[in-house]
Amino acid sequence: MPLDAVPQRRAVILLSGGLDSTVTAAVAKQEGCDLFLLTIAYRQRHAIEIEQAKQVAASFGVQHHQVVEVDLRALGGSALTGNLAVPKDRKEQERTQGIPITYVPARNLIFLSLAAAHAEVVGASVVYFGANVLDYSGYPDCRPEFIRAFEQAVAVGTKSGVEGTRLEVRAPLLTMSKAEIIQLGMTLHAPLHLTHSCYDPVGSLACGHCDSCLIRRQGFAQAGVEDPVAYAVR
Amino acid sequence: MPLDAVPQRRAVILLSGGLDSTVTAAVAKQEGCDLFLLTIAYRQRHAIEIEQAKQVAASFGVQHHQVVEVDLRALGGSALTGNLAVPKDRKEQERTQGIPITYVPARNLIFLSLAAAHAEVVGASVVYFGANVLDYSGYPDCRPEFIRAFEQAVAVGTKSGVEGTRLEVRAPLLTMSKAEIIQLGMTLHAPLHLTHSCYDPVGSLACGHCDSCLIRRQGFAQAGVEDPVAYAVR
Repeated sequence: MPLDAVPQRRAVILLSGGLDSTVTAAVAKQEGCDLFLLTIAYRQRHAIEIEQAKQVAASFGVQHHQVVEVDLRALGGSALTGNLAVPKDRKEQERTQGIPITYVPARNLIFLSLAAAHAEVVGASVVYFGANVLDYSGYPDCRPEFIRAFEQAVAVGTKSGVEGTRLEVRAPLLTMSKAEIIQLGMTLHAPLHLTHSCYDPVGSLACGHCDSCLIRRQGFAQAGVEDPVAYAVR
Repeated sequence: MPLDAVPQRRAVILLSGGLDSTVTAAVAKQEGCDLFLLTIAYRQRHAIEIEQAKQVAASFGVQHHQVVEVDLRALGGSALTGNLAVPKDRKEQERTQGIPITYVPARNLIFLSLAAAHAEVVGASVVYFGANVLDYSGYPDCRPEFIRAFEQAVAVGTKSGVEGTRLEVRAPLLTMSKAEIIQLGMTLHAPLHLTHSCYDPVGSLACGHCDSCLIRRQGFAQAGVEDPVAYAVR
């Protein structure tokens, strides 16, 4: 039997167009999955992510890339979708204490629910997402116990779950540092130059000062790799 | 202390504009909650529901009514959002066997996730939704074990959950027959004349023949109450 006749496991990948989700897609590809990329346009402040996600999808040569709109702005409650200011130049200690105002209420719960629905439609048995506990310790929906609880809700609450296909939720970067994620991305030839991390971009440039930019820049520095994206202020 | 000074428990109500969710809102009101109505515009075939929901909200005199858009049509997989035909004039045995094609993949999981996010933003400690196991036995996300699993995912995956506020998900109609729901709605003076149940309306009229119309008409007949809505074909 030729190699290309081996049936691939179908995987839905939550692809934001950011660094973590792009490396996560590269991991899923390396693990032999047939990729179904899913990007959620949630009226976020950093809507440039959607365009980056399309470029990342093209870079992977993936045919299946669905963009789904959900208006989280109507729900309010976050600096990423509302009028609250995105904090800048916070020290690591400030960034890692408590739950940041860039937390979007129940975001991963909503995103994983959409991914589970998409998985059911395309017949995927696994959802990959780029959650990471170290850099974003304040986001409760990035924790392993949440992922397990979500899997259980899908197992009992969806057609495929009831029919015996247990959807697996994989978060391969969960315990990695940002530097490790970058190194993994380099190893897997992930298109890091197309990724976007900034919460508050200045036109098409990353601001360089929000939590996400600070974490990214520190990660590239620690990995000893030059960050390929352009910043408004270095 | 005057009665109106008693702090009310805030509740998010998933209001589709259908019979069950309208009676559910009436139950929440009777149970003394401060209502925050949430309607999901998911590009369903029966988009008239959204208008009905607004009228129901006005009838309850509720100030807080949020409509949130999410494009489930992009995910596909259901007769309610796609191009599959809505089945007509099915016998009860056909309707209650297996999971119907009007099942929207992971719909309640998605809707409850949005409701949990809204609850977190407005400070609600309970979400009411009109799930019902008897009439829709084929929908896995209407089952009590799904509701409990979902509550657990919210408890470990949201800011309010981690901070100690356990969100309760209440489905007060879960084990009622349609006739019992109608009788309860009459007792609570729910605006049943504004509710809409049809999956496949003809203009502003209910078709009278889809599963949802058949169940509704049978329910009114069994309750001995005249159905106040207009049908394209009686």
